[in-house]
Amino acid sequence: MRTKIKELFRNTSEYASKEVTICAWVRTNRAQAQFGFLNVNDGSFFENLQVVYDQELNNFDDISKIRVGASVKVTGTLVLTPDNKQPFEVKATAVELLGDCPENYPIQPKRHTREYLRTVAHLRPRTNLFSAVFRIRSVAAMAVHTYFQDRGYLYVHTPLITGADCEGSDQMFKITTFNMNDLPKTEDGKVDFSKDLFGKQSFITGSGQLQGETFAMAFGDIYTFGPTFRTENSNTQTHANEFWMIEPEMAFCDLQGLMDVEEEMLKFVVKYVCDKCPEEIDFCDKFVSKGLKDKLNDIVNAKFTRISHHDVIDILKKADVKWEFEPDYGEDIAKEHEKYIVEYFNGPVFVTDWPKDIKAYYMKVNPDNKTVAAVDLLVPQAGELMGGSQREENLDKLIERMDEMGVDKEGIDWYLDTRRYGGCIHSGFGMGFERLIMYLTGVENIRDVIPYPRTPKNCEF
Amino acid sequence: MRTKIKELFRNTSEYASKEVTICAWVRTNRAQAQFGFLNVNDGSFFENLQVVYDQELNNFDDISKIRVGASVKVTGTLVLTPDNKQPFEVKATAVELLGDCPENYPIQPKRHTREYLRTVAHLRPRTNLFSAVFRIRSVAAMAVHTYFQDRGYLYVHTPLITGADCEGSDQMFKITTFNMNDLPKTEDGKVDFSKDLFGKQSFITGSGQLQGETFAMAFGDIYTFGPTFRTENSNTQTHANEFWMIEPEMAFCDLQGLMDVEEEMLKFVVKYVCDKCPEEIDFCDKFVSKGLKDKLNDIVNAKFTRISHHDVIDILKKADVKWEFEPDYGEDIAKEHEKYIVEYFNGPVFVTDWPKDIKAYYMKVNPDNKTVAAVDLLVPQAGELMGGSQREENLDKLIERMDEMGVDKEGIDWYLDTRRYGGCIHSGFGMGFERLIMYLTGVENIRDVIPYPRTPKNCEF
Repeated sequence: MRTKIKELFRNTSEYASKEVTICAWVRTNRAQAQFGFLNVNDGSFFENLQVVYDQELNNFDDISKIRVGASVKVTGTLVLTPDNKQPFEVKATAVELLGDCPENYPIQPKRHTREYLRTVAHLRPRTNLFSAVFRIRSVAAMAVHTYFQDRGYLYVHTPLITGADCEGSDQMFKITTFNMNDLPKTEDGKVDFSKDLFGKQSFITGSGQLQGETFAMAFGDIYTFGPTFRTENSNTQTHANEFWMIEPEMAFCDLQGLMDVEEEMLKFVVKYVCDKCPEEIDFCDKFVSKGLKDKLNDIVNAKFTRISHHDVIDILKKADVKWEFEPDYGEDIAKEHEKYIVEYFNGPVFVTDWPKDIKAYYMKVNPDNKTVAAVDLLVPQAGELMGGSQREENLDKLIERMDEMGVDKEGIDWYLDTRRYGGCIHSGFGMGFERLIMYLTGVENIRDVIPYPRTPKNCEF
Repeated sequence: MRTKIKELFRNTSEYASKEVTICAWVRTNRAQAQFGFLNVNDGSFFENLQVVYDQELNNFDDISKIRVGASVKVTGTLVLTPDNKQPFEVKATAVELLGDCPENYPIQPKRHTREYLRTVAHLRPRTNLFSAVFRIRSVAAMAVHTYFQDRGYLYVHTPLITGADCEGSDQMFKITTFNMNDLPKTEDGKVDFSKDLFGKQSFITGSGQLQGETFAMAFGDIYTFGPTFRTENSNTQTHANEFWMIEPEMAFCDLQGLMDVEEEMLKFVVKYVCDKCPEEIDFCDKFVSKGLKDKLNDIVNAKFTRISHHDVIDILKKADVKWEFEPDYGEDIAKEHEKYIVEYFNGPVFVTDWPKDIKAYYMKVNPDNKTVAAVDLLVPQAGELMGGSQREENLDKLIERMDEMGVDKEGIDWYLDTRRYGGCIHSGFGMGFERLIMYLTGVENIRDVIPYPRTPKNCEF
């Protein structure tokens, strides 16, 4: 019966002076003439376990030669070592090589660049950095589910395949079952999608919001959490073509209520991750982003600022800064503006009531008829972390906005039914999950928080 | 400040004789001359709240005319009614119509066929059946996450977009950013995928297993939980082209250990759902599948049978049954056989050690060189609920199997690295999430457990 290394670290005293068996991978092997140290990790815990072996073992010479990356089975006695750097070690009574690893193993116990590690994305989880990042990612996902489920939200799996071209097909991947070198054609030479699996052209989607709204009109509070896709040919640190998104939607909830949820959820997730992953956060604080831990602790206790887009522009205009992009009441705010504003308020900032012309058709138009009840949450370092709005619940006004903005109504008449049949005030937001992980770890490139990132010209593994 | 109906049901005594405000949708309105009853539901709870209104209200006539489907805001006093069918009701002091609903509302308080309800998939969550099904789906998803996270498994988001054609592209959707009516071509007239976003032809995947295995070699125990896609042109009750799957993978775990996990997980999920959704399970027991509740209770306490495929065939051959498909030691077992076997053992059955020729290349070949260490879990009614195997951890043997079965090695050389660098015994399984929900609810058609099902010729909403 093997014991997980996490169990040894979390309940050390129970195992003191007892025999334990561990299956794990070798991170380092420091062999000396009379004895040696194996540092091993079984993936259950961020820290390594130190194993001491000596000449008493009849395969001492073989153990001395075990290479980094190999898998081993270790039996031995757990010995408390309160005076050492690590609180305990295992004095081996048997070490067995399970799976060998050659000399040319790509992950050596030295510093590898993140660029190099992306080329071995299938092996990089074996490094400290990616062990920390992907463990935080997993725990953060659970935090999100826990927050919403504990509050009675329904988790809804909105479809990824869609026939509705509601976002503009330019931003969506087309899918087909056809052999693309031999497409069936109609008489006028176009692709005959009626012969494809769904009988029409279909896509993979960039959002589950519209379907999410239909479920909010039945279950009150719902959330989605699933992969989304964008075809953007953009090679920045923050863009990927496949990413995960969380999209909550709340019936009978206005813009103020929406901000309450966003603020409470973020604080909950941050606290949950800090509580469950102290070793990983410490590591990121030391080696990825100095001050990370303080930043995360601060946010849990911060009062988030709420200010209108108009008032933000006022502040930016008054600032003694030479802007690359001049602040404008009718325009989006640039990265440099976001940075200034979160520093100005020294914490997270909700920017509300945006010019309607730069926002989506489904957002509720304010009484001024110039702005919409939209809100972006800006946070220090990560910039925009969530974007949401109160939705236009009035059918006539919604249709008017769709017409103004040239949105096709035909494919999404079902969506309009949410306003025909017992419509109500409702609000929702979207949070890019990778952006959250970048915020929680301090990692600056989205490629380093996704197990197998998909970006332009990059679809390996 | 509004209160959720679930809160009133779960903590009734706290609200007795107090004023409450509810926002909800009208399920029925029975108006009489002097008074009336509104049954309302806000989506937080399966049961409806009964609201009593009378002539004291100055808008009594308007309230009497509120139609099914409308959204309302009700303020009133919670009155305990221990002698009535429902334990309490709200005596209204004010009823306000929030969102009207026309006479032709597609969801009326009568029995609609499931076929009809699929045509209004955006409205069907407002019925009792789909309220129960999708609530159970949400809670079951949380049960799965809770089971694995509490045991230290890492949740990994394996990629959906893939360039590796490792399952045979016939079963995968192709994706593209091209205008399919105007494809760029190479000199020899083929589609020039080098100009597509990823620089090569790409697909959406049917499994995250291979990438999952790479993460198991770093984190020990991992699971995936995400959407998967199959292009099967199959119009059965159990096939959909988009569905969610859970794929756990455990390092240092053999076939027996795998079955232990499968059995423990299923019992955990069933118990979790029965505990959290008693009203929904009761409803399904009454109106969907008589005996459901007993079946679920039984499984929590059952000892699952473990028997080899060979011994199953023995039993089938000895059975006094005229089979449509004759049982054969070298063949798969048919639906009729599955049904017989779970009845024979009166409970769930693990069928192990399958003929290697009908199973996948990555499964560990047994010492007999005829069978593989694979296991299917059969359960009463639902048939095969999970399928898994110990993986072939020996590189040479794995390559031999790939060659035998004509599997392309080039695109998945990274996968072979898991056997090159510190490989170890490991095992994993896949569970179709929809099949689990069908099992938990007794619903027989996969189209009725997916919010917006995608099946051949069906990609609406």
